[in-house]
Amino acid sequence: MYFYNVINVTIIGTGNLAFHLSKVFLKNQKINLVEICGRKKNLPIEFNHYINYSNNISRIKNSDICFICVSDDQIENISKNLQTEDSTIVLHCSGSTSIDVLSNHNSYGVFYPLQTFSLKKNINFSNVPIIIEGNSNKNLNIIRDLSLMLSNKALKASSKQRLAIHISAVFTNNFTNYMRIVADEILKSNEIDTKILNPLTFETFDKLKYLSSKEAQTGPAIRNDLKTIKKHLNLLKGTGHEKVYETISSEIIKLENEL
Amino acid sequence: MYFYNVINVTIIGTGNLAFHLSKVFLKNQKINLVEICGRKKNLPIEFNHYINYSNNISRIKNSDICFICVSDDQIENISKNLQTEDSTIVLHCSGSTSIDVLSNHNSYGVFYPLQTFSLKKNINFSNVPIIIEGNSNKNLNIIRDLSLMLSNKALKASSKQRLAIHISAVFTNNFTNYMRIVADEILKSNEIDTKILNPLTFETFDKLKYLSSKEAQTGPAIRNDLKTIKKHLNLLKGTGHEKVYETISSEIIKLENEL
Repeated sequence: MYFYNVINVTIIGTGNLAFHLSKVFLKNQKINLVEICGRKKNLPIEFNHYINYSNNISRIKNSDICFICVSDDQIENISKNLQTEDSTIVLHCSGSTSIDVLSNHNSYGVFYPLQTFSLKKNINFSNVPIIIEGNSNKNLNIIRDLSLMLSNKALKASSKQRLAIHISAVFTNNFTNYMRIVADEILKSNEIDTKILNPLTFETFDKLKYLSSKEAQTGPAIRNDLKTIKKHLNLLKGTGHEKVYETISSEIIKLENEL
Repeated sequence: MYFYNVINVTIIGTGNLAFHLSKVFLKNQKINLVEICGRKKNLPIEFNHYINYSNNISRIKNSDICFICVSDDQIENISKNLQTEDSTIVLHCSGSTSIDVLSNHNSYGVFYPLQTFSLKKNINFSNVPIIIEGNSNKNLNIIRDLSLMLSNKALKASSKQRLAIHISAVFTNNFTNYMRIVADEILKSNEIDTKILNPLTFETFDKLKYLSSKEAQTGPAIRNDLKTIKKHLNLLKGTGHEKVYETISSEIIKLENEL
């Protein structure tokens, strides 16, 4: 039914994900962004200023699909205060929150885009895998069809599988980026331009196109080169990075023994 | 003097770096690879089989520059057993070894390519920064000129600075790659195709072209979202990845408090 006409959607929230979703909705002719609803008095200036905005959730406009894009600990609370028609599918966008927190609604599900979103960096949404779940097959099919209008890849996963995907995203994105923060800090404190790491950072990523992550592993820990590890720990003494270095190295050494 | 004619080079060692260096030397018309010398009976089959090979270091052929490409703990030993002419510059290629281990020679220095090398993955050497050091200005200039024949970037650094660069490379490459190993493992044990992480892995790297590593940080730890972190640790219980997750998250939380 939905897809012969325009789909009306609303967004609750004004953070990074709400921003990127609003952009991709506005670009899609089959989707009509009815309204954004948030706590702030006005819609933040980064957003397209033609979007209708309200900060009164009790008077939210009707839509086919309502996206809850708020921080994880607010989803349940927002869901309880949200009055929608029975046919409206209420979705949250969280990797680590069970679908069940939306069970006060008639139609609900999950739409979790597996990507890292920052305001200042554009995202090509068509490459972003969408991890989906629905409270019925009918709703799941609608969520899948909508996802495939935005992205090339939609993947059905249980709430537990989605949590595992979210953890893997924390390792591959958040923790990886933190490694570069540490590297940049070490270089700066030794008066070396951090750009020197760019070819290595690129190769670290590029290798994974050709080798499995296990095949791609190099460095002192996988060689069990304890002498080099000791030299590194000596230089890191007092910088606060010792513990991270030690913990990860000892895990890689364990891996070396397994291989 | 060297650069009006062909430079004659030798390589000691038959590992990943020796392999990639031999390839780049063979491609360069101004460089003549005289010989590779290693412990193995024959040159491994991956190498170009026209290269002269010997496993007798006491009869190594004369060259202008001799590259010691062996594991860090063997460099000093190899250097002591290496008889060269006074004019031959002896180089090691280690990030974490002082230049001083080569001081039994008349001319010596360091040639450390800041990159990760695997046999199965080609490297565009022209993008690899070479970190150099020399026992005299004259030798340093020769090492720099040779480096710039192979790469766009040569950087002079003290042995201590080079060690700091090496540590930063361990964080940005070895530890980052380990994060992907963990992520792949978590996905596999939940029956999810690991390829689903590829767009996120790409974005993690691509972001650094537009944002500093600190600006690029997202995720539960930088938001100090202890509830999500607890859910993640619960799911990781017994997998062996708990400690890594906990250690890095607590460092990111500290960072959040600094910002």
